[in-house]
Amino acid sequence: MSAFSLDRARSTRDAQRRLASAPGAVRTGILMRLADLLAERAGEILDANRRDLLAAAEVDLAAPLRDRLKLTEAKLETLHQGVRTLADRADPIGHTVGHTELDQGLVLRQVRSPIGVLLIIFESRPDAVVQIGSLALRTGNGVLLKGGSEARYSNRVLVDCLRSAVAAEGQAPDVVTGVEGRVAAQALLEHDELIDLVIPRGSGDLVRSIQSTTRIPVLGHAEGVCHLYLHADADPEMAARLAVDGKCDYPAACNATETLLVHRDFLQRLGPVVAALSEAGVELRCDPESRRYVPNAVAAGDQDGATEYGDLILAVRTVSGLDEAIEHIHRFGSAHTDAIVSESVEARQRFLTAVDSASVFANASTRFADGFRYGLGAEVGISTGRIHARGPVGIEGLLTTRWLLEGSGQAAGDYGPGKRQFTHRSLPSE
Amino acid sequence: MSAFSLDRARSTRDAQRRLASAPGAVRTGILMRLADLLAERAGEILDANRRDLLAAAEVDLAAPLRDRLKLTEAKLETLHQGVRTLADRADPIGHTVGHTELDQGLVLRQVRSPIGVLLIIFESRPDAVVQIGSLALRTGNGVLLKGGSEARYSNRVLVDCLRSAVAAEGQAPDVVTGVEGRVAAQALLEHDELIDLVIPRGSGDLVRSIQSTTRIPVLGHAEGVCHLYLHADADPEMAARLAVDGKCDYPAACNATETLLVHRDFLQRLGPVVAALSEAGVELRCDPESRRYVPNAVAAGDQDGATEYGDLILAVRTVSGLDEAIEHIHRFGSAHTDAIVSESVEARQRFLTAVDSASVFANASTRFADGFRYGLGAEVGISTGRIHARGPVGIEGLLTTRWLLEGSGQAAGDYGPGKRQFTHRSLPSE
Repeated sequence: MSAFSLDRARSTRDAQRRLASAPGAVRTGILMRLADLLAERAGEILDANRRDLLAAAEVDLAAPLRDRLKLTEAKLETLHQGVRTLADRADPIGHTVGHTELDQGLVLRQVRSPIGVLLIIFESRPDAVVQIGSLALRTGNGVLLKGGSEARYSNRVLVDCLRSAVAAEGQAPDVVTGVEGRVAAQALLEHDELIDLVIPRGSGDLVRSIQSTTRIPVLGHAEGVCHLYLHADADPEMAARLAVDGKCDYPAACNATETLLVHRDFLQRLGPVVAALSEAGVELRCDPESRRYVPNAVAAGDQDGATEYGDLILAVRTVSGLDEAIEHIHRFGSAHTDAIVSESVEARQRFLTAVDSASVFANASTRFADGFRYGLGAEVGISTGRIHARGPVGIEGLLTTRWLLEGSGQAAGDYGPGKRQFTHRSLPSE
Repeated sequence: MSAFSLDRARSTRDAQRRLASAPGAVRTGILMRLADLLAERAGEILDANRRDLLAAAEVDLAAPLRDRLKLTEAKLETLHQGVRTLADRADPIGHTVGHTELDQGLVLRQVRSPIGVLLIIFESRPDAVVQIGSLALRTGNGVLLKGGSEARYSNRVLVDCLRSAVAAEGQAPDVVTGVEGRVAAQALLEHDELIDLVIPRGSGDLVRSIQSTTRIPVLGHAEGVCHLYLHADADPEMAARLAVDGKCDYPAACNATETLLVHRDFLQRLGPVVAALSEAGVELRCDPESRRYVPNAVAAGDQDGATEYGDLILAVRTVSGLDEAIEHIHRFGSAHTDAIVSESVEARQRFLTAVDSASVFANASTRFADGFRYGLGAEVGISTGRIHARGPVGIEGLLTTRWLLEGSGQAAGDYGPGKRQFTHRSLPSE
């Protein structure tokens, strides 16, 4: 990466600090302007997208990737609405989350603050420029956007819309900066003094490769090997419905169900579940015990029960009870989302308490693990990490806190045994 | 590292999951038992510590390190009290931090949960075994403790106290596991499937070297280059008091003041500040402009103003005003703790809003940046990272959240345009 580019990243940090300390109305104004620009420049955006689609056709890009690449009037309208909704949200910056009197005239507040400069690495979908860019602006963060080269022209116009909206409110446009080329992104990963958080939106392999090569924290997402456990007393009709929804609603999603764990005593009542899944075209890969209850079952191989199929395939495993189910989930799962179907309050509570996953459900489909469904508004992504933000991540994932202390001349040496004592009195947060 | 040791780390995760889903009374009981054991086995602990001190004398370990290594009856009593206090604290696990009705009979809760398995890497001070070990147990985490070889014998006995306390409550002792040797620790850093968070307690170099070699998130601490900015209207007496406290209360601390930024218009009134600092034995390294007001000043070199001295040395820099002070802090500081002295509410507010540091103070010493002083109770450390936990980190830094969804058979496919709508109704948190 040329020195020029690193200078641009430095300039993003300076611009971000100005934006972060500006009044909330400035950030709201930027989002309003961005929403307008998406409408005003729709023709230009769609033209650029057509250039990307032509290039994609030439290199024979796979059909699903082309679908994700393609922008439409409808997709632009959705983006426009999303940005408007974000503009209407209360400004999160400076919100007090903790408030303590340390002593008379010495008051501590913990307030929400932007993280700083984010590096977003994403593939194919140019929508991500607007979705993540607008989230970053709402939360006062600077953002370096590295999109896939297949969306080059679309990304350029969309980044320009973001920068123009920023400039229209008198802020430095470099708070949003496009990055092109793998080499440039790789070079940025070496600069933890310029970038505070990397958010890769792509495969688990991409995430792991980035984690291995940078000191910068990564908010990422590995695979989702999600389980649905049918307890001995599960309602067969509910079990069938949740298994079909979990597997078939969107098989490529990370929150799709991949393994059905079945209590031995439920096997006799597995009929309706098998029938519903078969009707939905799902291939069942069964262990020897469950296989006797599944007509046309495929025998499970070594990897079945530990695989994210992303397809209409479901592993079926028999377990002797709740403890074995939980043990299986801990051993073979990915701590993403796991669910139980049971009529017993005790079994459900035990499952909810013991399963060490980001999302743990009782009598509901694994597909509910999603920022929109959780009511978080915008979604940054689903994190399979355990620190900072876990599971579906909303605006809070792009915020940190600062500690503000207002005194009247106090020195730390004034406090201690035989000297002044701290009061540590809790004050109302807002 | 032998396969045996990795098996022990695996066993720590299993043990941790059992501990995490046990009732809070179990974790409280363990801490009560630990407090008792520290008293009952005090003789044995001090004997082991004497062996470490003898070995330290043989290799001529530096005096400050020997001080940190040494345990006394008084230090053991402090540890005992700390563990008792922690035992008395409410169990944080399962505490609801978010509560939303997604639809009738479909309720989402976000609850506090342990992070999982922590790897703590620390030097010299055997106290850390008890301090961090007890924090980990209170929060339901498993912990691998890698101490310095100079405290080998002390650490072994203290780890054994922790394990005995765990076993006494019927839990698996491997939830606390000692790790010896650099090679073993290095090998563990490769296993992000066994360890969820690394907490190095040591130099900034140690932290950075760990961050460079592992995919596991690191909660660490780089240097503290903290500033005290004297605005044009600062009260000279208050400025003198806060400069002396910030520099001299404990010069080796990361929250000690390293650079004094002085508004040009304050220079004429710098006399009392210089006098107080000189009397306290502080060497002042001044830029040309401030030097004219400081008798016996040393001329500042290239690195002064960007250095953590850890000693009775203070850089002095003249600035033209608030904006230049803020710019200097952003450019040369470490975003740890920075303070302003000013009689003007506007100047203080602008400083508190604009300075992008973990702790930002007005009219108070930088030395207040500390978990105990903030009223967090126990302190895990001070983080200079920006995500998860920033600044002084208490118990919350060892916790994450899980999302628990309780339904009555809902499928995600039931919701959408023309179908069921989410209510997303906020419910009381606790």
